[in-house]
Amino acid sequence: MGEAEMLDYNVPRGKLNRGLAIVETYRLLKEGDELSEEEIFLACVLGWCNEWLQACLLILDDIMDNSHTRRGQLCWYKLPEVGLHAINDGVLIKCHIHRIIKRYFRGKPFYENLMELCDEVGLQTSLGQMLDLIVTHEGEKDLSNYTMAVYRRIVQYKTSYYSFYLPVACALLLAGENLDDFIDVKNILVEMGIYFQVQDDYLDCFGDPKVMGKIGTDIEDYKCSWLVVQALERANDNQRRVLYENYGKSDSVSVAKVKNIYEELNLQDVFFKYGLASYEHLISSIEAQPNAAVREVLEWFLRKIHCRQK
Amino acid sequence: MGEAEMLDYNVPRGKLNRGLAIVETYRLLKEGDELSEEEIFLACVLGWCNEWLQACLLILDDIMDNSHTRRGQLCWYKLPEVGLHAINDGVLIKCHIHRIIKRYFRGKPFYENLMELCDEVGLQTSLGQMLDLIVTHEGEKDLSNYTMAVYRRIVQYKTSYYSFYLPVACALLLAGENLDDFIDVKNILVEMGIYFQVQDDYLDCFGDPKVMGKIGTDIEDYKCSWLVVQALERANDNQRRVLYENYGKSDSVSVAKVKNIYEELNLQDVFFKYGLASYEHLISSIEAQPNAAVREVLEWFLRKIHCRQK
Repeated sequence: MGEAEMLDYNVPRGKLNRGLAIVETYRLLKEGDELSEEEIFLACVLGWCNEWLQACLLILDDIMDNSHTRRGQLCWYKLPEVGLHAINDGVLIKCHIHRIIKRYFRGKPFYENLMELCDEVGLQTSLGQMLDLIVTHEGEKDLSNYTMAVYRRIVQYKTSYYSFYLPVACALLLAGENLDDFIDVKNILVEMGIYFQVQDDYLDCFGDPKVMGKIGTDIEDYKCSWLVVQALERANDNQRRVLYENYGKSDSVSVAKVKNIYEELNLQDVFFKYGLASYEHLISSIEAQPNAAVREVLEWFLRKIHCRQK
Repeated sequence: MGEAEMLDYNVPRGKLNRGLAIVETYRLLKEGDELSEEEIFLACVLGWCNEWLQACLLILDDIMDNSHTRRGQLCWYKLPEVGLHAINDGVLIKCHIHRIIKRYFRGKPFYENLMELCDEVGLQTSLGQMLDLIVTHEGEKDLSNYTMAVYRRIVQYKTSYYSFYLPVACALLLAGENLDDFIDVKNILVEMGIYFQVQDDYLDCFGDPKVMGKIGTDIEDYKCSWLVVQALERANDNQRRVLYENYGKSDSVSVAKVKNIYEELNLQDVFFKYGLASYEHLISSIEAQPNAAVREVLEWFLRKIHCRQK
């Protein structure tokens, strides 16, 4: 497989949320000003950098999670002619991101900050993945590790920074802003990322595989999912025993027993209420933001993820 | 496994050639000046960055090559509690390199160039690995792909840039030099890298596993080794047929047949003569360099690799 086929297989076909978010955020931040073709082009370049990063992370995570399908097709490493060479493909994509940034942004006043931002978020994401792998796979299976605090920490590092903070931060740099002035915005975006991941975990169990383009296996994979954390918080001794005995086993009987506990505990209802509370909390945090353009950006993100089906 | 154990397992225990090369090169470039503690410290920091890069590459390459041992111990991914999580460990190590550079060199006049150098060499190395994987594994096994031109291209990208050029380039930046003024030096170092890899390929087959810390499997792995390229250039029709039929098979009979051809073709002798010719060519290229400190640096490298046993 050549490099072009590898990129075509892995970079498109997602929802492009992260890439579009940069362009949209940049547009909102420059509200009032007509954007030049050059400005739109550069925002698109950064948007695609985010999509390339996403492609790299998915290729590698799918290998480590032993996943089967992604975006409605076989995972890249599952193709017989690819296999573990996919590791180098993932690394290569990440190298290209730096190259693209160098090519289009070298000499801009924010060039150094942009490079450092990408590096920082890349590191945070790898640390999140490490934490996830350690909690999920280290030593004997022990569900007592799965608490809401651990869950939040994993999601913050593994997902929020690159999926929510990074696009906005890229657009802020492009608009000439200093990232140190937007710590509150970062915190709101981290919260939004956690809300997004909770939805992801919910859909893994209760979503429609046809709409999702993948079949959920969080229970089989002993994932630190929001659902199991909530179940553990609510279970009586008997239910807890069933969870400890069946969570992380791949036979369909064990999976059904876990799902049955989720039903008994009304986790669909818990999820619905959690969604509403998160939404309201995010709305009020956003309304407290002094900058109108920033408010619009955050509202745009919230609209994108609220009530999503995939 | 925590991060500290991962680093302890993977970063030390090598020959430290790359790391020491930076410190040594820097010392030679600043010849005459007494180095301050600060200057030595910073050279050591960059030296370790090179060793971390090496650790990252070895972790990932060992997975893709399905290797068993490395530096006298099991490959990291072969530890039962690690497995494919090693992928994230490799990625993490690379992220940390950028972080270390940012921490110690931010604000220095060569900071941007140093970051870009690391990115560029990282990309070249991944491209070399891709080329190697494609030539070795793509489609039907066809030894006619294995020519000296292909061999040189793979080694140049996969090994020479990061093992030979990178340490010198780091030291040059640290000494305040402009890398554009050292294109000849780069070319000589690339040649030295090829010489080094030829030795590596030779030792894989003819070296002492106890001294090497690993057991060679280039024949079994259908590697584009210097030995097979040389054998193909020299084989008669019958020998060529034996190579085509047995190269890349893992049973000991096939391996013995390939080694037998190597003996028939006197490849040990060919290697000895090649080594002498390379050495003489490198010596004369080095002597043509106008800068005395640069000559000393290149001679230091050549001494390090000439006649090595591991």
